Amino acid sequence: MPPITPTITPPSASARDAATARQLTLTKPTGALGRLEDLSVWLAGVQGMCPPAPFEHPAVVIFAGDHGVARTSGTSAYPPEVTAQMVANFATGGAAANVLARQAGASIRVVDVSVDADPAYLDRIDPAIADRRIRRGCGSIDREDAMRPDEVDAAFDLGRTLAAEALSAGADVLIAGDMGIGNTTPASALIGLLTGHPASAVTGRGTGIDDPTLERKTATVAAAMRRGADSADDPRALLRTVGSPDIAAMAGFLLEGPVLGRPVILDGIVSCAAALVVARMAPGAREWWVAGHRSTERAATLALAELGLSPVLDLELRLGEGTDALLALPVLASAALTLAEMATFDGAGVSNRDASA
Amino acid sequence: MPPITPTITPPSASARDAATARQLTLTKPTGALGRLEDLSVWLAGVQGMCPPAPFEHPAVVIFAGDHGVARTSGTSAYPPEVTAQMVANFATGGAAANVLARQAGASIRVVDVSVDADPAYLDRIDPAIADRRIRRGCGSIDREDAMRPDEVDAAFDLGRTLAAEALSAGADVLIAGDMGIGNTTPASALIGLLTGHPASAVTGRGTGIDDPTLERKTATVAAAMRRGADSADDPRALLRTVGSPDIAAMAGFLLEGPVLGRPVILDGIVSCAAALVVARMAPGAREWWVAGHRSTERAATLALAELGLSPVLDLELRLGEGTDALLALPVLASAALTLAEMATFDGAGVSNRDASA
Repeated sequence: MPPITPTITPPSASARDAATARQLTLTKPTGALGRLEDLSVWLAGVQGMCPPAPFEHPAVVIFAGDHGVARTSGTSAYPPEVTAQMVANFATGGAAANVLARQAGASIRVVDVSVDADPAYLDRIDPAIADRRIRRGCGSIDREDAMRPDEVDAAFDLGRTLAAEALSAGADVLIAGDMGIGNTTPASALIGLLTGHPASAVTGRGTGIDDPTLERKTATVAAAMRRGADSADDPRALLRTVGSPDIAAMAGFLLEGPVLGRPVILDGIVSCAAALVVARMAPGAREWWVAGHRSTERAATLALAELGLSPVLDLELRLGEGTDALLALPVLASAALTLAEMATFDGAGVSNRDASA
Repeated sequence: MPPITPTITPPSASARDAATARQLTLTKPTGALGRLEDLSVWLAGVQGMCPPAPFEHPAVVIFAGDHGVARTSGTSAYPPEVTAQMVANFATGGAAANVLARQAGASIRVVDVSVDADPAYLDRIDPAIADRRIRRGCGSIDREDAMRPDEVDAAFDLGRTLAAEALSAGADVLIAGDMGIGNTTPASALIGLLTGHPASAVTGRGTGIDDPTLERKTATVAAAMRRGADSADDPRALLRTVGSPDIAAMAGFLLEGPVLGRPVILDGIVSCAAALVVARMAPGAREWWVAGHRSTERAATLALAELGLSPVLDLELRLGEGTDALLALPVLASAALTLAEMATFDGAGVSNRDASA
């Protein structure tokens, strides 16, 4: 784990200022491009240049792990075996995130952080996917810790390493996707503890659970939150008691982008939970993040509000995997391109509003 | 003008049904792709095939015209001369819509329907842009008709012809953009009359007007609505009394897509106003339309609600030009691609939720 306040250099203020100023010169009414304008300023800041450019090499890393609560409390509409099956599906290109990554020209890598399956499940696919596995599954957080302290550190460091590897390979923006039956349970508990909302407010329907399962899941989140209440000010303890290895790894990943001065697009509720944890370690990290999409999971909205981030899209998805972030890429490209390519009032001989005075 | 109920064949019900059924087989929780799922069904219907494909040849036609009220009532933050200047800007590729069209691989054509400028303004650009001009400017709708009855017919027919030309040239989806200082004034009046909301509810800040201008604009819209009140059930009379040549042409364009069995992406408030008029002539047209983006102009939201259309995006733009629609194209592509390319539970060996029972 890093020190409590890792060194994070803020995005370029001068590039942000230049973008803000340039927006005023473009042939459109002031502010008429809405969110594209503030996104263009964010892009300029994190790229350190004005005008900014569309991201050319987005990198998605999918953090896969199983969750004890899925087996012991049955908090999902799908059986735990689906996690391993979906890892295989990512590896062979059949998941939604794969489709959207191809559309966006993004790379995608799935990493078995803590899947609860014999690694042989990858034999005919790609055994390397489990090479960095931290542990097999994790504890049921309503009654026991998710993992040992050394496993928290190892998972967090794995996430940092995966971010550094993606950037070394040429990525210009990072996306952390999730895959894990049951993973919205620790995510909800973390968000509840870090935003001060009760289990009833942070527990959602995840994969689409029915009312009895939602009741059971809410009780599970409440029990976890009681267990984690004393750790709310200690990110490391929080990840250990009510988190999971995959979320700890994701947290390391979301931190490492900003530490290395590179931007990150946040994804669904699991990504938002990991981001909240990181924000407690390094408040400056959030300046390097943009929220791709508002998941229908209520806790994601609470987390984003706590982070002060307004999602780019609101398309009612609740899938995670990186899909929330991938869908935002074309909008970010539009923000960069309009700032870069539009004519100016002077250049195009168009009268600005001052001329009407 | 067409008969009151032009023949419109509904989108393919069988393709829609096939898309709905296929969604249930894909490796994701039921409904987890949110709006992408219903958009995929719409795409299947309007393309008549399942799975549908991303649009490859979107065609934007920008309907440019001036509005008497801009000069007589000063309802805009920009001087009327900007309309002609922006036509030139579109022709030379410098406007926001040009940038987004390039990004989306869309064609873009600007047509001078009723710009209030000597056609010589196009001499050094492309004189053909004004070849189909209906008239120079139009009447101040708070005190006089926008145009003569024969001009309504000619403008409407021009729009139909422009749609047919775009489709003949290979377009697979149509977008109607607008350019005209003052054009949100007739758009607001039309929406007010067709939704039953008063001028105060349908008048917005357009290009970003200040409070005194908003007050003046609201009074102008109110006066126009009084003039048009008796015509609310007669689309043709409505376009004549409180519309404009550019909006009449746009209405013809929005109708012709559905008449020819081709889809349309609606744009900002002006496009929504024209769509409302068309919906009164041909209610079936709306099934061929999707709303690209929710303009911050309140009247656009009222119009879309009346049409029963939920916008794909909500990025706080208020520019029109086709930008609202162009920004939605990548989302529509995502909807098509996920339905087309994702693995199925059976194909990928992933357990569906039934397996957990």
